[in-house]
Amino acid sequence: MSQHTQKFDPRPIGVFDSGVGGLSVLSQLTDCFPNESFVYLGDTARLPYGSKSPQTIKHYVTQNINYLIKNQNIKAVVIACNSASTVLADVQLVDNIPVYGVIKPGARAAQAMTKNNRVAVWATRATVKQNSYDKALKDLDSKIESHSVPCPLLVPLVEEGLWEGPITESVVDMYLEKLQGTNVDTLILGCTHYPFIRKTIKERAKFFAEKNKSLNSELNIVDSAQAVCDDLDSAFKNGTLLKSNTEPDLSLLLTDEATHFMDLVLKTFPNWKNVRFQLIDLHQIV
Amino acid sequence: MSQHTQKFDPRPIGVFDSGVGGLSVLSQLTDCFPNESFVYLGDTARLPYGSKSPQTIKHYVTQNINYLIKNQNIKAVVIACNSASTVLADVQLVDNIPVYGVIKPGARAAQAMTKNNRVAVWATRATVKQNSYDKALKDLDSKIESHSVPCPLLVPLVEEGLWEGPITESVVDMYLEKLQGTNVDTLILGCTHYPFIRKTIKERAKFFAEKNKSLNSELNIVDSAQAVCDDLDSAFKNGTLLKSNTEPDLSLLLTDEATHFMDLVLKTFPNWKNVRFQLIDLHQIV
Repeated sequence: MSQHTQKFDPRPIGVFDSGVGGLSVLSQLTDCFPNESFVYLGDTARLPYGSKSPQTIKHYVTQNINYLIKNQNIKAVVIACNSASTVLADVQLVDNIPVYGVIKPGARAAQAMTKNNRVAVWATRATVKQNSYDKALKDLDSKIESHSVPCPLLVPLVEEGLWEGPITESVVDMYLEKLQGTNVDTLILGCTHYPFIRKTIKERAKFFAEKNKSLNSELNIVDSAQAVCDDLDSAFKNGTLLKSNTEPDLSLLLTDEATHFMDLVLKTFPNWKNVRFQLIDLHQIV
Repeated sequence: MSQHTQKFDPRPIGVFDSGVGGLSVLSQLTDCFPNESFVYLGDTARLPYGSKSPQTIKHYVTQNINYLIKNQNIKAVVIACNSASTVLADVQLVDNIPVYGVIKPGARAAQAMTKNNRVAVWATRATVKQNSYDKALKDLDSKIESHSVPCPLLVPLVEEGLWEGPITESVVDMYLEKLQGTNVDTLILGCTHYPFIRKTIKERAKFFAEKNKSLNSELNIVDSAQAVCDDLDSAFKNGTLLKSNTEPDLSLLLTDEATHFMDLVLKTFPNWKNVRFQLIDLHQIV
């Protein structure tokens, strides 16, 4: 193949999550790369991954990646799920297709932002137990002190559409209180559901800092989705990935029926009007 | 076998749930029948059942009942899970062992309590979708008007140990507001997690009724666990079940590691000191 014919690559980028939380990552990706096509796979039949063993998660991740490569002809894979990303050390190639997780990019973004080397991580109980962000941060800079807080109430609040209001504020306050005395200046949102309540977190952190000097009022919030976009942007710039030259296309594939939460999310992203839905049989993946 | 030797039956009563929420039912059972032995099976490896299809739930329920009968030598089975009970029409015999669900007894208790034939049901989104309580209530008395409210935030609050306090009160208030104008006088707790916050629900309902006349201030709260105890009590009285004559014994079997919530629950029931734990391989069940 000549250099000329390799200038573009119209194949879509595959994105997958155990459910629909990863749509927050997809929305960042479609914002950052409006000319690219995407295929999103939500493995709703087997969710949640977080409560499964690392061996089982690895098995599911491998199956999903193989499905996207073999059946959807994608040029790259983004694992838009923290639990699933815990099994991935860093960007890796599968059948020459690069696979990106959210943990390493999130850790790198936090390292770039923190001024005092104190970083908080909010995540599900499963992700906190794996210490994935703590390890990723320590690998980048051994001076970084991380404080991980399991925030199990945030996923159900987000899925119920309570993205703001007094209940969510009280729950966010409860988790902010666990950061008292840590003097963190940066907070990683270590779950793809959390960006939906980013605004509430930012506002409560500011309010909290004003009445309590132990929490930095200029709390930087790291959203892994933005960080993974930066990684893809570098890949496009250095030629690891080639841009698409065709009309962008968006497909959402689910292994089980769409949920109440999915309907909510779709109302939030009105520019996803031409999205194509498809229910796929889990047997195509396993 | 002579009439004399059949006077007692020392075999345990089997109780199962998709997880550990059913321990609220077990605690009622051990309170009501302190001389009986129990084997509790928490199918934590396959939870949650609520999001699975009726066919899959039926398959799991059959497997769990067969396991308890064949491997644990039980004399009766209590399905301590609303999602699992939805596949059971009423008490039924499996290999001559009676199997009790929680839905029919809960509906019967509500029918006995309501004075104005207006009954509310709080349950998970999955149980509400199945209309199981509505159907059971209509079967008992076609004049009963039921109002089902999905309360998906209550399970995570209970599992996080927030059994009282301002956050849980706000969430309970949000679900009470959905009963405005229904004039219900009875509320069925249609999920085995909810009895852990029964006190908060009772208090908020009272507070709510005082400021708002459309909600009955004497709201009766039906806990299916108490209702299933009444069913078993009748069975002991009419001879369907025979009492144990040996030292009571309590075993908890889980198909996956114990959770944070389980530790919490066990602290709540200190009289379960001599409980025996066992992690069992799912292959013994499937």
